[in-house]
Amino acid sequence: MNGLLEWTHGKSAVEGVSIEQIAAGCGTPLYIYSERGLRRQFAALRNALPREIDIFYSIKSNPHPKVAGVFVQQGAGCEIASGGEYALAIHAGAVPERIVFAGPGKGRDELEYVVAHGIGEIHVESFEELEMLEQIGSALNQRIAVALRVNPSAGSGGGLMMGGAPTAFGFEEESLTRAVERLASCKHLKLCGVHVYTGTQILSADGLLQHWHHAVEVAKKTAALTGGPIATIDLGGGLGIPYFAHETELDLEVLGAGAKRLVEEARLDPRLAKAQFVVEPGRFLSGPAGIYIARVRSVKTCRGTTFVVLDGGMNHHLAASGNLGQVIRRDYPIVNLSQPQSDAESTVVVVGPLCTPIDTLGRKVTLASPRTGDLLGIMQSGAYGLTASPTRFLSHPTPAEVLVNNGKFEVITPRQEFFVNAGRGGCATA
Amino acid sequence: MNGLLEWTHGKSAVEGVSIEQIAAGCGTPLYIYSERGLRRQFAALRNALPREIDIFYSIKSNPHPKVAGVFVQQGAGCEIASGGEYALAIHAGAVPERIVFAGPGKGRDELEYVVAHGIGEIHVESFEELEMLEQIGSALNQRIAVALRVNPSAGSGGGLMMGGAPTAFGFEEESLTRAVERLASCKHLKLCGVHVYTGTQILSADGLLQHWHHAVEVAKKTAALTGGPIATIDLGGGLGIPYFAHETELDLEVLGAGAKRLVEEARLDPRLAKAQFVVEPGRFLSGPAGIYIARVRSVKTCRGTTFVVLDGGMNHHLAASGNLGQVIRRDYPIVNLSQPQSDAESTVVVVGPLCTPIDTLGRKVTLASPRTGDLLGIMQSGAYGLTASPTRFLSHPTPAEVLVNNGKFEVITPRQEFFVNAGRGGCATA
Repeated sequence: MNGLLEWTHGKSAVEGVSIEQIAAGCGTPLYIYSERGLRRQFAALRNALPREIDIFYSIKSNPHPKVAGVFVQQGAGCEIASGGEYALAIHAGAVPERIVFAGPGKGRDELEYVVAHGIGEIHVESFEELEMLEQIGSALNQRIAVALRVNPSAGSGGGLMMGGAPTAFGFEEESLTRAVERLASCKHLKLCGVHVYTGTQILSADGLLQHWHHAVEVAKKTAALTGGPIATIDLGGGLGIPYFAHETELDLEVLGAGAKRLVEEARLDPRLAKAQFVVEPGRFLSGPAGIYIARVRSVKTCRGTTFVVLDGGMNHHLAASGNLGQVIRRDYPIVNLSQPQSDAESTVVVVGPLCTPIDTLGRKVTLASPRTGDLLGIMQSGAYGLTASPTRFLSHPTPAEVLVNNGKFEVITPRQEFFVNAGRGGCATA
Repeated sequence: MNGLLEWTHGKSAVEGVSIEQIAAGCGTPLYIYSERGLRRQFAALRNALPREIDIFYSIKSNPHPKVAGVFVQQGAGCEIASGGEYALAIHAGAVPERIVFAGPGKGRDELEYVVAHGIGEIHVESFEELEMLEQIGSALNQRIAVALRVNPSAGSGGGLMMGGAPTAFGFEEESLTRAVERLASCKHLKLCGVHVYTGTQILSADGLLQHWHHAVEVAKKTAALTGGPIATIDLGGGLGIPYFAHETELDLEVLGAGAKRLVEEARLDPRLAKAQFVVEPGRFLSGPAGIYIARVRSVKTCRGTTFVVLDGGMNHHLAASGNLGQVIRRDYPIVNLSQPQSDAESTVVVVGPLCTPIDTLGRKVTLASPRTGDLLGIMQSGAYGLTASPTRFLSHPTPAEVLVNNGKFEVITPRQEFFVNAGRGGCATA
């Protein structure tokens, strides 16, 4: 599975560190991230894309500053969607000019904070937000760099995205003229570019390129309306990773070649000749480098089905339980980390410890036959794992997060024992 | 909506306290629980059921000790599903003898802890757990009171539950004989009774009674196998509350009358003559007394659909977004708390502030036309609200929890500002 695991005498390791050793030190369940794996994903994308396309890491996929910091060190900017994510991006080492802020319901406090502390660009999503930003710019006597987030019209992007549907995100493409006109009258706002939402978990390079082409069209339309140059074109995120056997990785060669042509063609328009392109992947960068690890508490058979009960479940990895939206429904790749992969396999149901039938992590999982005490690993879990999970549900301990790097590991989030803290009000694990 | 809200000149209040006043004091979003509402639900159920049926509050539905404490003060026991919930139950004022512990993946550390500190009954779910408990009893030189959790066979309960399906919960009814035999040979375990899983969110009194009848049958079978009396019969939980217009409340009169007959008939069996019956509702007790409140940040129209963007969403109330299992899919009742209910109504889509299309709280909500700054309330939110939500997702502040009682309110969980804490590792809101 994606080259993250190493095997010696049937025992698993990451970057030369035994997983059993980490588990013994930090307790289970836990999350392990491989720094090499994070770097590898970034480098692969960086090398595939032409220089003119900048990479901004979408922090929401894994907001830990140590994870985001790996990408920042390699040259990524940060795409944030809340004031809290701004603080995390700064903590990860990002400079304010390399941060962009999108989101359909930004609060006035968040906007004031980022404007006061410095930000690259704010992606405006509504007329109300335009007015609010103009007021903030006026109060702080600043000219704020903004891009218009545009919600594409029907027919764009080859059917893979939500083009044409009503959504809460951005300005409808149909109202672009009105938005540009309103912006032109705002003395404290400076229109730098456009941002077009792409979709999520897209594995087709051609599909992505179609979206990107449409984003360039939107940029041209905007340039024609303003009559001036466009400084930035945010192509959105949505770069997917494979979760299931039938899925294949995004073809970076096809994507890179298409992106090169896209940039060359766009630059033929004199108003786009100096535009900086941006992609903002999250899942693609952080997802493949993370593993959620839990220990088998019980193996039981009920009416012919074998259930493997772990010491963690949907409370730590909601996405793997199929309860985080409809995009990735079920059965993340799961590996028995404690038995030789050449062992006899079983097909089992993998469940968490919570007293609810929705705490199911894998419905038809084939892996080296698990025994009580084994460690199982849910792969592709570096994105939308702990950050998107209801850690307090059923009041279990919260897992440690560990960053492994070249033979060493660092606990970047300590485990929280529930017993100790349970007395302290409702925020017992906090 | 369930008598929780009071209206004066178009302004909403709970137990005489203005909601706008609480929101001004604690910030938004927030959760409000009405102590009167909690007491009312408990009293209604207590008065409906015969004395022979004891009520144990299922802590997982809302584990805040101040909430659980309201039920404990009225005489409820506590049903827990983790070691953390044991600590919370004790903190809520429960005595150990009035706590029962169920769950498919109990850890050895959790079992040792509760046995050492005292517990009413442990509901055993597998042969492996039997062995582990026998070892713990032996090590601590104690005789541990246990009940067998039984997973009913096909055909039981009238099709409303998962009878006959393979699950991770309890012993298959088909292996009851083997379980009783194994238990008989365990010197440090004492078989007190049985616990039969019921299902969840059941609104039909007749449906519930069918399950309960089956539980009594299982108890009789068990008594016949042991040859001795049965001390406790846990009928399970599953008592539902209405979320949608087409749903009606559980008919407590029918349930109470049926339960009375059930108890009378069961007692005809001499081995069940002194049995204590138990029900373990969670949602039914805590759900109706809670409101999730968020403020409107933006009202925008896109392609003919009006979107109301709130300052909180699935990060605080996953269940309302339809992402907590399949039982309650969507569109909790939502009320505009800031406008007279006689106002002109709009049908809108209610979304949270997160930068993802799955952060949708209501897809077709009709309410007094909302404006930016209004407070909206999601009703029936006292159960599986904050406790079951991914509060760190997108790094927003976490909401306060407030308990209102007869003209006063108490902040039982303080709001956590994300900005302040964001520097501290991955557990930024912690």
